[in-house]
Amino acid sequence: MEMLRFFFFFSLLFAASNAADFCVGDLKGPVSPAGYSCKVEDKVVVDDFVFSGLGVAGNTTNIIKAAVTPAFSAQFPGVNGLGISLARLDLAAGGVIPIHTHPGASEALVVVQGEICAGFISSANKVYFKSLKKGEVMVFPRGLLHFQINSGGGTAIAFVSFSDPSPGLQITDFALFANNLPSTLVEKVTFLDDAQVKKLKGVLGGTG
Amino acid sequence: MEMLRFFFFFSLLFAASNAADFCVGDLKGPVSPAGYSCKVEDKVVVDDFVFSGLGVAGNTTNIIKAAVTPAFSAQFPGVNGLGISLARLDLAAGGVIPIHTHPGASEALVVVQGEICAGFISSANKVYFKSLKKGEVMVFPRGLLHFQINSGGGTAIAFVSFSDPSPGLQITDFALFANNLPSTLVEKVTFLDDAQVKKLKGVLGGTG
Amino acid sequence: MEMLRFFFFFSLLFAASNAADFCVGDLKGPVSPAGYSCKVEDKVVVDDFVFSGLGVAGNTTNIIKAAVTPAFSAQFPGVNGLGISLARLDLAAGGVIPIHTHPGASEALVVVQGEICAGFISSANKVYFKSLKKGEVMVFPRGLLHFQINSGGGTAIAFVSFSDPSPGLQITDFALFANNLPSTLVEKVTFLDDAQVKKLKGVLGGTG
Amino acid sequence: MEMLRFFFFFSLLFAASNAADFCVGDLKGPVSPAGYSCKVEDKVVVDDFVFSGLGVAGNTTNIIKAAVTPAFSAQFPGVNGLGISLARLDLAAGGVIPIHTHPGASEALVVVQGEICAGFISSANKVYFKSLKKGEVMVFPRGLLHFQINSGGGTAIAFVSFSDPSPGLQITDFALFANNLPSTLVEKVTFLDDAQVKKLKGVLGGTG
Amino acid sequence: MEMLRFFFFFSLLFAASNAADFCVGDLKGPVSPAGYSCKVEDKVVVDDFVFSGLGVAGNTTNIIKAAVTPAFSAQFPGVNGLGISLARLDLAAGGVIPIHTHPGASEALVVVQGEICAGFISSANKVYFKSLKKGEVMVFPRGLLHFQINSGGGTAIAFVSFSDPSPGLQITDFALFANNLPSTLVEKVTFLDDAQVKKLKGVLGGTG
Amino acid sequence: MEMLRFFFFFSLLFAASNAADFCVGDLKGPVSPAGYSCKVEDKVVVDDFVFSGLGVAGNTTNIIKAAVTPAFSAQFPGVNGLGISLARLDLAAGGVIPIHTHPGASEALVVVQGEICAGFISSANKVYFKSLKKGEVMVFPRGLLHFQINSGGGTAIAFVSFSDPSPGLQITDFALFANNLPSTLVEKVTFLDDAQVKKLKGVLGGTG
Repeated sequence: MEMLRFFFFFSLLFAASNAADFCVGDLKGPVSPAGYSCKVEDKVVVDDFVFSGLGVAGNTTNIIKAAVTPAFSAQFPGVNGLGISLARLDLAAGGVIPIHTHPGASEALVVVQGEICAGFISSANKVYFKSLKKGEVMVFPRGLLHFQINSGGGTAIAFVSFSDPSPGLQITDFALFANNLPSTLVEKVTFLDDAQVKKLKGVLGGTG
Repeated sequence: MEMLRFFFFFSLLFAASNAADFCVGDLKGPVSPAGYSCKVEDKVVVDDFVFSGLGVAGNTTNIIKAAVTPAFSAQFPGVNGLGISLARLDLAAGGVIPIHTHPGASEALVVVQGEICAGFISSANKVYFKSLKKGEVMVFPRGLLHFQINSGGGTAIAFVSFSDPSPGLQITDFALFANNLPSTLVEKVTFLDDAQVKKLKGVLGGTG
Repeated sequence: MEMLRFFFFFSLLFAASNAADFCVGDLKGPVSPAGYSCKVEDKVVVDDFVFSGLGVAGNTTNIIKAAVTPAFSAQFPGVNGLGISLARLDLAAGGVIPIHTHPGASEALVVVQGEICAGFISSANKVYFKSLKKGEVMVFPRGLLHFQINSGGGTAIAFVSFSDPSPGLQITDFALFANNLPSTLVEKVTFLDDAQVKKLKGVLGGTG
Repeated sequence: MEMLRFFFFFSLLFAASNAADFCVGDLKGPVSPAGYSCKVEDKVVVDDFVFSGLGVAGNTTNIIKAAVTPAFSAQFPGVNGLGISLARLDLAAGGVIPIHTHPGASEALVVVQGEICAGFISSANKVYFKSLKKGEVMVFPRGLLHFQINSGGGTAIAFVSFSDPSPGLQITDFALFANNLPSTLVEKVTFLDDAQVKKLKGVLGGTG
Repeated sequence: MEMLRFFFFFSLLFAASNAADFCVGDLKGPVSPAGYSCKVEDKVVVDDFVFSGLGVAGNTTNIIKAAVTPAFSAQFPGVNGLGISLARLDLAAGGVIPIHTHPGASEALVVVQGEICAGFISSANKVYFKSLKKGEVMVFPRGLLHFQINSGGGTAIAFVSFSDPSPGLQITDFALFANNLPSTLVEKVTFLDDAQVKKLKGVLGGTG
Repeated sequence: MEMLRFFFFFSLLFAASNAADFCVGDLKGPVSPAGYSCKVEDKVVVDDFVFSGLGVAGNTTNIIKAAVTPAFSAQFPGVNGLGISLARLDLAAGGVIPIHTHPGASEALVVVQGEICAGFISSANKVYFKSLKKGEVMVFPRGLLHFQINSGGGTAIAFVSFSDPSPGLQITDFALFANNLPSTLVEKVTFLDDAQVKKLKGVLGGTG
């Protein structure tokens, strides 16, 4: 009897709680400037909020001896709308994450294995870099150029988090040399020599 | 003639005014992290911006002798996208709104009848509570635990407003005892005794 | 002993909880685009979160037979930084809140006594207005012209809330006629007749 | 071979870069409080980010001898979600942009030809106005009444930008006199004389 | 000579780059709703962006056999204004982080050692929980009750990040039982038995 | 008499209007993550909202034959807190604004003289560029690499606006070559040849 009355109250409140607690991304629905459309709440399950992909080492058998494994809203729809996302960095010995920016987010990196020399450059062209040991954290303010280099002997691993579910990733070399931006334009806007531009376009698959 | 020229100007400006003045929620359209899709502007009428449900007393013949009537974007689509929503609290003599949070909003309460003892607890575990008379206002910072108790002799009524169209409502007791979260887990994360947990699970319809 | 260990844990957590739960405005400190500086947390008391000024009827013995009593962050520093504020409207019989905007906030109005005809005008110049009874709510989207008129026989009272702690209030007539904006400029930008402008400047104390 | 390995790395990163760099508005898709739905990235072309409409003089052969040409997200979908938009002002000799607000944005104006007297009025009813020469900039804080008048001998042109892709535009005269808001209401909320209201309703095509 | 001309250009641009790239917190300056005041840029050094405290295991010799080590803006001023912060969780065998909320932030957790059963409860009182292995990530939407339990045999460690530099931390048990909120009030707002409340107040050091 | 009563009402409202209409930057006060402290309202004058510096051609007798003249909050404190700022671009024949980002803002460019080839590169490494004529507008989404080149015969001039009062400006070449970032690090993170790096460090005044 008491319970009955409780349930009455409960259902009344339930109406109020059809809340925007979360918005698990429906990758097939329309996208708005605020992110993906929300999956219907009834179909949301705990696995929408769990991502296992960062538990697996990235493949570092490439020229940079490094890998970035993203858990952005496109890979991990549970973070859609929540102002956060993650990635895993794997750097084999000698590995480098080339200089890059995240156009829409700040980043915090925590080293979980090895040693990483990380740094960023401010709008005032001042350089801030340091070699980080296991457990150390470094933060990279939003939109600024930054890099990570394995500065230890073995493999290094870091987890990074971002202040946005879809932070973007613009690697300067890829932006300049891995597309059809004409060499003459690249040279004009970078002051790089023609031979240098063509060499890197060759390596990175750019044309023009 | 003069009017004609005016209309010419008018229609030119009209093109500019297809503005995002408001976004009355279309509860059947896709939802984004920013809220419901917007109802087509041509079909928007004044009643989309008016809500009559707070004029009716909530049913307080329940175990807490209280009721919460929400005017969130799910009930009152006119507030969608506008950064505000409302609710009405009815507390019969002895009525209590149990301790709860609104995960995404601050709240401001104004007493319009009777007397209400309201309070919140900060992250520093400091308690701020006071008995409020008719016309008095109290603000509850976003996300913090707070409560309202009828501290007068008769019925008390308050209108509350929120800094978000969909503030959410998480009543601690319901979160802990009105679902299938296993008792052993509840006990581990709350330090409550097994008997206490099972008693409240019984009352609130929880299982496990 | 057990308690001791708990306290150890507690103090560790306490360090973490020097949180931005709230930021009660220090009206004498520097102001930022985000609002007033925060009062030192140790000196914050419950009365910082309580405002009694809306419990008192505003003085309506004036030409508009109405009064606005604000509880913005300047009057009620507890709302500083919390995305919300309030005001009380008193309208004697025949009272009018002249057409106005809040440059930085949406508004929700709830009638607590009498009857109020309220309305707003969109960027598309469409008018949305309705006579509201006790308990009815109307929302006015941010920045749009709106008004409130006592449409009942007796005194009307409403509580309004805003989606910003410092919403601003720009009454069109006061903006146009209660300052030293030269009459010729007023006429040019409003198309009003010279006699009309001078008459209202006279009534409202404007010069030029 | 080296390139092959590079491509391997490249495609891995590519997965991460399905980013929210931009959200060109799909004017036919659902609209959210954050703006239009995003056009599919594969179909986005450079012309989505280019707008040519501001290169053409607006037609000023109307009663205000002025024209506003908007490049808001409705006309220029490339700005959708980017926090910015633009417009062009043309003022023939004697031209005036009547007093107005943008409900959701601040505005910055730069004079590119002629001389413009521009001003705004604060919530405190204080007037800030000045005659601006070619190359001078003035900023109008969000939501406040402001105006622009050709104060030179010839044609004046300005480009304005806004802090929102859909700033809205509410011209006070049009809001008051170009719709069916009853004259008696207009008079009550503006203190204007009946003759004045009816005259302007006549000119601007208002009824009631 | 060429360099000289370059420097000319450089210094011109330098003026533009006194930018708000970051705002390292000056913990002694005034605080605004947006965070701490910024340390003078000239005095900012790389160590402002590096935090070593998460490299050290928290002391888990307490009743919950767990520790939370925060790297919020109060401990790590480099994250001030950047929309992100971190913490380290240490859970000895049997360790538990009791149910809690972060009033102002979403959280993402990555397990770096051991196994953690983590979960949260929505406004709709639905429970989402799962046992996470090393490398697995779980996200907890902002403001919702959540918990972490060591579900493996040995020590478990996790790094968590937040969508705000000062997310707050409200542990439900501490909020209810570790202060002077009178037992009668606690009982009214939680439905807990008097004996249970007094027992936990005793353990946690609460009074009243 | 009537006026007296009006003034009574006026002063009552005046109290409410001590609003956050604007926050002209006090460059000597404390800075918060939201921008500069606000100049005292009583001392604010119209010239705080006007900036004349964009009316003057920048000095283009330098190696890039171009100049950027900023009107960010550091130069034009009136835009502080208003979500907008501006700059002027001067490009002599052959002039180039080298590839750069604004870490915290989108940009809209309008050509007011000559012809400018402008472009940006997305996170997906896709290039969007076009030659813009007088009056044409292009928008560059926040944080992405972009450039401007004089593509006509004579001098070109553009006004640009930003979605933030302090957008920052990071010119890639200056970030890489105009500071003390060691050449070996630059080479590792860019794949550029040692000779190329040293050459540009020489030109741009970098060391290391």
